[in-house]
Amino acid sequence: MHGLLLERVVRRALEEDLGHGDLTTTAICPPDEKGPARILCKEEAILSGIEVVEMVYRLLDPRVELQALAQDGDRITPGEVVVRLSGPLASILQGERTALNFLQLLSGIATRTARYVELVRGFPVRIVDTRKTLPGLRALQKYAVRVGGGGNHRFGLSDGVLIKENHIAVAGGLKEAVRRARSMLPLLTKVEVEVQDLEQVKEALKAEADAILLDNMRIEDIKGAVALVDGRMLVEVSGNITEANIRQVAATGVDIISLGTLTKDVEAVDFSLLVEGL
Amino acid sequence: MHGLLLERVVRRALEEDLGHGDLTTTAICPPDEKGPARILCKEEAILSGIEVVEMVYRLLDPRVELQALAQDGDRITPGEVVVRLSGPLASILQGERTALNFLQLLSGIATRTARYVELVRGFPVRIVDTRKTLPGLRALQKYAVRVGGGGNHRFGLSDGVLIKENHIAVAGGLKEAVRRARSMLPLLTKVEVEVQDLEQVKEALKAEADAILLDNMRIEDIKGAVALVDGRMLVEVSGNITEANIRQVAATGVDIISLGTLTKDVEAVDFSLLVEGL
Amino acid sequence: MHGLLLERVVRRALEEDLGHGDLTTTAICPPDEKGPARILCKEEAILSGIEVVEMVYRLLDPRVELQALAQDGDRITPGEVVVRLSGPLASILQGERTALNFLQLLSGIATRTARYVELVRGFPVRIVDTRKTLPGLRALQKYAVRVGGGGNHRFGLSDGVLIKENHIAVAGGLKEAVRRARSMLPLLTKVEVEVQDLEQVKEALKAEADAILLDNMRIEDIKGAVALVDGRMLVEVSGNITEANIRQVAATGVDIISLGTLTKDVEAVDFSLLVEGL
Amino acid sequence: MHGLLLERVVRRALEEDLGHGDLTTTAICPPDEKGPARILCKEEAILSGIEVVEMVYRLLDPRVELQALAQDGDRITPGEVVVRLSGPLASILQGERTALNFLQLLSGIATRTARYVELVRGFPVRIVDTRKTLPGLRALQKYAVRVGGGGNHRFGLSDGVLIKENHIAVAGGLKEAVRRARSMLPLLTKVEVEVQDLEQVKEALKAEADAILLDNMRIEDIKGAVALVDGRMLVEVSGNITEANIRQVAATGVDIISLGTLTKDVEAVDFSLLVEGL
Amino acid sequence: MHGLLLERVVRRALEEDLGHGDLTTTAICPPDEKGPARILCKEEAILSGIEVVEMVYRLLDPRVELQALAQDGDRITPGEVVVRLSGPLASILQGERTALNFLQLLSGIATRTARYVELVRGFPVRIVDTRKTLPGLRALQKYAVRVGGGGNHRFGLSDGVLIKENHIAVAGGLKEAVRRARSMLPLLTKVEVEVQDLEQVKEALKAEADAILLDNMRIEDIKGAVALVDGRMLVEVSGNITEANIRQVAATGVDIISLGTLTKDVEAVDFSLLVEGL
Amino acid sequence: MHGLLLERVVRRALEEDLGHGDLTTTAICPPDEKGPARILCKEEAILSGIEVVEMVYRLLDPRVELQALAQDGDRITPGEVVVRLSGPLASILQGERTALNFLQLLSGIATRTARYVELVRGFPVRIVDTRKTLPGLRALQKYAVRVGGGGNHRFGLSDGVLIKENHIAVAGGLKEAVRRARSMLPLLTKVEVEVQDLEQVKEALKAEADAILLDNMRIEDIKGAVALVDGRMLVEVSGNITEANIRQVAATGVDIISLGTLTKDVEAVDFSLLVEGL
Repeated sequence: MHGLLLERVVRRALEEDLGHGDLTTTAICPPDEKGPARILCKEEAILSGIEVVEMVYRLLDPRVELQALAQDGDRITPGEVVVRLSGPLASILQGERTALNFLQLLSGIATRTARYVELVRGFPVRIVDTRKTLPGLRALQKYAVRVGGGGNHRFGLSDGVLIKENHIAVAGGLKEAVRRARSMLPLLTKVEVEVQDLEQVKEALKAEADAILLDNMRIEDIKGAVALVDGRMLVEVSGNITEANIRQVAATGVDIISLGTLTKDVEAVDFSLLVEGL
Repeated sequence: MHGLLLERVVRRALEEDLGHGDLTTTAICPPDEKGPARILCKEEAILSGIEVVEMVYRLLDPRVELQALAQDGDRITPGEVVVRLSGPLASILQGERTALNFLQLLSGIATRTARYVELVRGFPVRIVDTRKTLPGLRALQKYAVRVGGGGNHRFGLSDGVLIKENHIAVAGGLKEAVRRARSMLPLLTKVEVEVQDLEQVKEALKAEADAILLDNMRIEDIKGAVALVDGRMLVEVSGNITEANIRQVAATGVDIISLGTLTKDVEAVDFSLLVEGL
Repeated sequence: MHGLLLERVVRRALEEDLGHGDLTTTAICPPDEKGPARILCKEEAILSGIEVVEMVYRLLDPRVELQALAQDGDRITPGEVVVRLSGPLASILQGERTALNFLQLLSGIATRTARYVELVRGFPVRIVDTRKTLPGLRALQKYAVRVGGGGNHRFGLSDGVLIKENHIAVAGGLKEAVRRARSMLPLLTKVEVEVQDLEQVKEALKAEADAILLDNMRIEDIKGAVALVDGRMLVEVSGNITEANIRQVAATGVDIISLGTLTKDVEAVDFSLLVEGL
Repeated sequence: MHGLLLERVVRRALEEDLGHGDLTTTAICPPDEKGPARILCKEEAILSGIEVVEMVYRLLDPRVELQALAQDGDRITPGEVVVRLSGPLASILQGERTALNFLQLLSGIATRTARYVELVRGFPVRIVDTRKTLPGLRALQKYAVRVGGGGNHRFGLSDGVLIKENHIAVAGGLKEAVRRARSMLPLLTKVEVEVQDLEQVKEALKAEADAILLDNMRIEDIKGAVALVDGRMLVEVSGNITEANIRQVAATGVDIISLGTLTKDVEAVDFSLLVEGL
Repeated sequence: MHGLLLERVVRRALEEDLGHGDLTTTAICPPDEKGPARILCKEEAILSGIEVVEMVYRLLDPRVELQALAQDGDRITPGEVVVRLSGPLASILQGERTALNFLQLLSGIATRTARYVELVRGFPVRIVDTRKTLPGLRALQKYAVRVGGGGNHRFGLSDGVLIKENHIAVAGGLKEAVRRARSMLPLLTKVEVEVQDLEQVKEALKAEADAILLDNMRIEDIKGAVALVDGRMLVEVSGNITEANIRQVAATGVDIISLGTLTKDVEAVDFSLLVEGL
Repeated sequence: MHGLLLERVVRRALEEDLGHGDLTTTAICPPDEKGPARILCKEEAILSGIEVVEMVYRLLDPRVELQALAQDGDRITPGEVVVRLSGPLASILQGERTALNFLQLLSGIATRTARYVELVRGFPVRIVDTRKTLPGLRALQKYAVRVGGGGNHRFGLSDGVLIKENHIAVAGGLKEAVRRARSMLPLLTKVEVEVQDLEQVKEALKAEADAILLDNMRIEDIKGAVALVDGRMLVEVSGNITEANIRQVAATGVDIISLGTLTKDVEAVDFSLLVEGL
């Protein structure tokens, strides 16, 4: 989540909220009135988004100074102040909603990820995200997954090959699909194949895929696939995995569990910005 | 949600997913191979986002033709096909994830909104959204709220005045804050004041605000506020409203219930795109 | 006129003027030669645009320092110096025309607005602008109207409903048009109806519009409308209002006079930038 | 005024007016209701901007069909219909103000230019514009000047060298300034020098400038300059030229008269869009 | 090289060349004059860029119709016509230079790549590009490398890990650098290490890198490295490889030879556009 | 090459290379680890691009401080350090390739230009570039040509008229083409005509073109053209000019030799960035 990308995302969020200007604050707050303010969290959560809050105010008004009292990845408690702000109150209030919207989203993602990571503790398995993300926010969401202790699947269609059911159908077979993919593959990119059953697992092994994705398989079949593969490819599982059954899935010996819910479902964490005195 | 805005949002979503190109599809699908495909929904839901799917393919490849089998606002059932596509398979597959990501998000919002609207059926109250939205996606989210039967609060800081606790503190009083806001108010814009107790309700009445927002009040106080206002201002309620208590809140006689959860929390609806034959 | 919006408008103005570079200054001015310069006004005017001049030089070369000797809203006299500049002369000269073009435009608008505001002094009426603006410059123009003592009508199609003749024709009636508009209205937005005669004024009252716009009516009819409305709606007048008749219009008791001329016609105020010594 | 540039300018004008959507039209006009409409002019004017109106509707909704009844450069009369439109009424109305704002501006410029051109008819002199333009609209304004029969001075700082008083001061002399400018001059670009008196005219001749700009000189001095130059350089006059004295200026034998007023002052021409039936 | 990316690159190339408009063509070519034209190549070359030429005219004027007589990857001969165009001559000429600039660049890259690929024919080695590219043109250049028979190294910093000398220095060792890289690695991305000697080759084997890059090694050491690795990692060679010695390098048994010269050095292929009759 | 243009070009180069982030550096370099580094050149060359390197780091991380040890236009020797950097190592490494890609390109252009300029030393002839440039990089390339001692032909289609074979064909004759071009010509822009033979040279003289471009003529014909023109127009020569014959061409007495090779062919100069200690 480098600065130029972050700047672009935050700039359009600010422009979206500000429109042609903040009617309320412009009318009410004298431009030179300064004061301290604080951002606090009202729930237990894994914090994510401090750098985004900093970008909000760097773009809006560099005179606003921020002091972070907690860092991304910290577990924070209800009522904990995470950022102190000082500077022109008009600018602090104009950026409030945008800053909080990022913070509540990213902390929500980190918190959920951490919960799943905790559930599989002890197993040599990695929890990763998918491309089921909120349009325009993927890089930030995948950053928050890492903050929560998860890993990243590919970021988009250009940094990894994942051959799915539809591709196999078009190619006329798994083996042919892998062959075609390899022919144009950039040097540092891997090929993964989504498979539906053990027969396809065998095909993928023969085709020398780098990884397989077991799609919506039963626990018994997952175990069978892990045994068949025997370490020769990465084994990823996806589909119908919940907080209730994830530990059972992890116990099958798979390398990777990918969860769409980390980035397609959101449960925002509750943050507030308060001008001091309040 | 006019076309130029939609185009901008969809274009950046496609660019985010495509990066420098879809490695898998470019390698596997011959550019001229055509075929039919379908998008189907796997859950019961209120559909929202058909126009966005159309924009995805208009930008990606205008040769892809779409036939919508359902419209935004329709209640759809598990397994229902909502769009049929035909045209170059490579393009259909390149747009798949972006199209589904919009569809699952917007239908999720419409579905949740419809559930809350249903819960207050019979009361003359309107369910509306807030500015607690996903950065960069606000106009689309607010569209989906309307599809679900809800209404819209202001879209951003420039199309309505909402005087909150922080503004009152800076102005040194509710009345002075309203006075300042009125002095610069565009002609067709209203002034709303967030209040914490009945004393402030009286102040807002004296200040001739157009609306008040009762923030996190108890049911008894909400009833008291409605009685005090007696139709002279719009009365909005927000904070700590759940599926469990919303009917009780509606029964107080308020005009508006605003719910951050409509746009800050997301429960994606499950859609798939399948090439025919699968 | 917040900073991100101003930056965008000023950046494209600079890029428009600079093209691939300032041939004259690059060739003639050594990059390190510094010196003072001043911007002076050659006419009596209401100043508007100081912040824009600051943005011009912030984008072009932050080493140029500005000292404002007058503020937006000040009445300035011929020959008055409004800004002193110091820093690299090459940068000062590269920004000259862009800075002056904004200053002459915005001060022209503020000056004209102030003239109309002065003409109705003593009447409880507000002079406001319209959407008849210069494409791409609306927010700046509306800012200059406020500097001149005027108020703002809506900024665009999304922050207010104004039902005009064409909409009534499509809806099949004024009442139906208002009803449709209300059904989708954001919470803090008002509905205004343009009317041509007293019959329509009565319809608008019945439809409970928030405001009416009397379009091109005779003085007698305006008086009649004011009497009919009797304070129940805002009454705005527009069309064929000149410096000659505006006082007469104000005397009818209307609340608002809107003037397209404030933003569609421009009489630039004459400013110069001079390197010291000249 | 090529298509890509026009598209960019029109797109941002539409986005400025539409914001997050046209509340009025979206609520009132059924998306599929179609109908004819017309744009008519209410004053005598030189028409300019037909192509811009076409771009407005091409971007907004290509289903809107336009038929131009007059062309740029035509002298039109009060009440004359210049464009007929047919297609979705919602789209026609959403583009109305943007289309008219361009039309009224560009026709205003063409009309004023034509008036000045007419005033000097018979003299071998060319009326040209300056860089005193409306920020972001220069290429369109300069197009309208050509439509009105005028010519263009340079478009910006990169397509011509104009050495002004400030540059001469920095260079330490007119001759040195011209020498420096020539050293970096692109192959097809000319050098012009702004001069204040006849002494400088002689210097400019010695320095072999391609053109001189007589700044605010008296008629007698202009005649003296023309005599001195005797066809060896282009002679341009600028400053304090009005409709009253322009013919006298033209009679001095200068080649070029440049007028800031063509593009910095605007008198909009009055156009309306009416849905048929009205 | 998907359409949205191509559109962006071609649009800015057109805007760069057109500026505020094509003075020559606008003045000389009547807008409606149509005619055929052809693009021909004056040298033997591998063609690349037909799709880009199509995009040039799609953006500039969709009325220009193109007929490709050769396809990307074809070996063309001096004088061969590769595209026939018909439509408005003004548009054809306005796009000429931009179209040819892309064609001469991309065909130059494909031609050079094909020459290197030919030189190593018979060896199981792949010729790939690097990140030494022309800023803003990387995706197109890497496309042209593929057209010439080469392969692609990573496209940028986000789709592959390449640990270089500087990174090893910062990490304090090769093994630690690989360990850190693996900890955050997206699922389908590989880790490559640049090594300077055989000692580092052994370290890389221990660290289980996916590939090594032998940087500027002598032929003997390359052979030694290939023997050490013995198929357990991809072996890439780079640095000081010329047409003279590439066959000798290929003979060492390496898997990959990467050549900065494919994309950092350009020898344009000579193309012309001629209006028929010429 | 003003700052706003440079910023735009460098920003998109950085975004192209960084994608969603630098996987290697983010994982390996602690964000706060600082250190010195240096950029050195490995060949003899004319340096060009120092300002671009500064922009790379200003955009990426303003905490990186640069000290230039050589200036654009300096002749540098193998091993010479041209820039010293200090600051966060992660940022220094993230910008490395982008900075070097600009430096190697621009220095390559300056170096080649200087070689041609040197070859014609003693003749009153100017070496200039053409519009055969790398799409998106023209202003930077033309800057590098000036650094190398060359001059610039027009930058694009809007800052000069060059009537070529195709235009003459469309106009139906050279004289008519010049007449049409003059009719719309901006004030400070010249008209040049490309000619194929001495007959056309005479026509161009009659048409009073400002310059002629002798296209691919033999030495004898060039001499004939120079004699015919006798100083009344600028004489430019282009086509089939090599290092071998350029001195002979210069000796004909032409004013200008334009070389496509300066900007369409690139021979990158070899630069490296090394973290100190290496």
